[in-house]
Amino acid sequence: MTEIKDKSVETFLGELASKQATPGGGSAAAVMGAQAAALVSMVCNLTLGKPKYAAVEADMQALLAESEALRVTLIGMIKADVDVFDKLMACYGLPKASDEEKAQRSAQIQWVLREATEVPLACAKACAKAVELSRVAAEKGNLGVISDAGVAVMAAYAGLKSAALNVHINAASLKDREFAEAKLAELQAIMQNADTEAEAIYQIVQGKL
Amino acid sequence: MTEIKDKSVETFLGELASKQATPGGGSAAAVMGAQAAALVSMVCNLTLGKPKYAAVEADMQALLAESEALRVTLIGMIKADVDVFDKLMACYGLPKASDEEKAQRSAQIQWVLREATEVPLACAKACAKAVELSRVAAEKGNLGVISDAGVAVMAAYAGLKSAALNVHINAASLKDREFAEAKLAELQAIMQNADTEAEAIYQIVQGKL
Repeated sequence: MTEIKDKSVETFLGELASKQATPGGGSAAAVMGAQAAALVSMVCNLTLGKPKYAAVEADMQALLAESEALRVTLIGMIKADVDVFDKLMACYGLPKASDEEKAQRSAQIQWVLREATEVPLACAKACAKAVELSRVAAEKGNLGVISDAGVAVMAAYAGLKSAALNVHINAASLKDREFAEAKLAELQAIMQNADTEAEAIYQIVQGKL
Repeated sequence: MTEIKDKSVETFLGELASKQATPGGGSAAAVMGAQAAALVSMVCNLTLGKPKYAAVEADMQALLAESEALRVTLIGMIKADVDVFDKLMACYGLPKASDEEKAQRSAQIQWVLREATEVPLACAKACAKAVELSRVAAEKGNLGVISDAGVAVMAAYAGLKSAALNVHINAASLKDREFAEAKLAELQAIMQNADTEAEAIYQIVQGKL
């Protein structure tokens, strides 16, 4: 089957809109995060090598290495979301006629739910990283493309808030509350101040227009 | 030349990251808006025909018609952004040796800047519409996919804030201040309460998880 990353933008959007279960919001979150990372890279690529920005050359090289690695990571997460969702659906489809079947089905669902909590949590972390990288782009990037740093931070923030919803849903279904609470605490730590930080970076950009 | 919508998601992200001038933040904003519209459609498509949601069948049909039209509009805006940017770059490349050439070049730049202000303004309006549609999806959609309404509102809001940056940049370069101020006033009206509205819709979704 063709991976989403290899489908056209229009096909992806069509499948997102359709009644098929995947791709859904989890993949959309990863795409937004990947757009954020890509825009940070764009700001770097249009700042590097310009005499006017020679002072930030090393910063931009380091930033570009991070944003490009993050873009690869987030592109991988588009598929990871689909895969874990499909796995979860397969578990829900398991037979549940006997008590033994019910117990086996429930155990498998619980096992996959752990992964279904960790996948969006990893996406949330990657998006939070994209917010962080957007700040450097906004502070040090070429003023001619500084608005792209502003788009980057909004895309990253939207990806973060979106992935957070999927962590919440799946954590809520987990019977292993210790595991669930640990994951929710990790999410909480990432979300802490994310809205004020995203808005602050956006304001940096707006102040430079 | 292949339109962005016809390129793979990965190719789009690669071009976004590259040093080529387009696609940039304007196209990314339109893609985010289109993702929002698509996710509203997804919620509709997974609510329609379900006996449990028979009471909102007509609402969901009407919402789906709007979200699908909006998705088409926003997909068109991916290209519109590239086109007007390319036109603007072509104007900046016009000869400016004589005073006459300078005057002609300046006049053409100013003419295209009007369009370059209107294109992201139209994108901002479409994204604001996507926020509005997300509210209906969040309030009335199938609880099993309600998180997708939450992702929709975040994508729509990010698209709106992103498009707004491009309106500001281009309006700032306009010599026709009456036109510029009128466009900025339109933007202002759209942005009014957008952040509290987006957060309120997100909270509706979170309250239902």
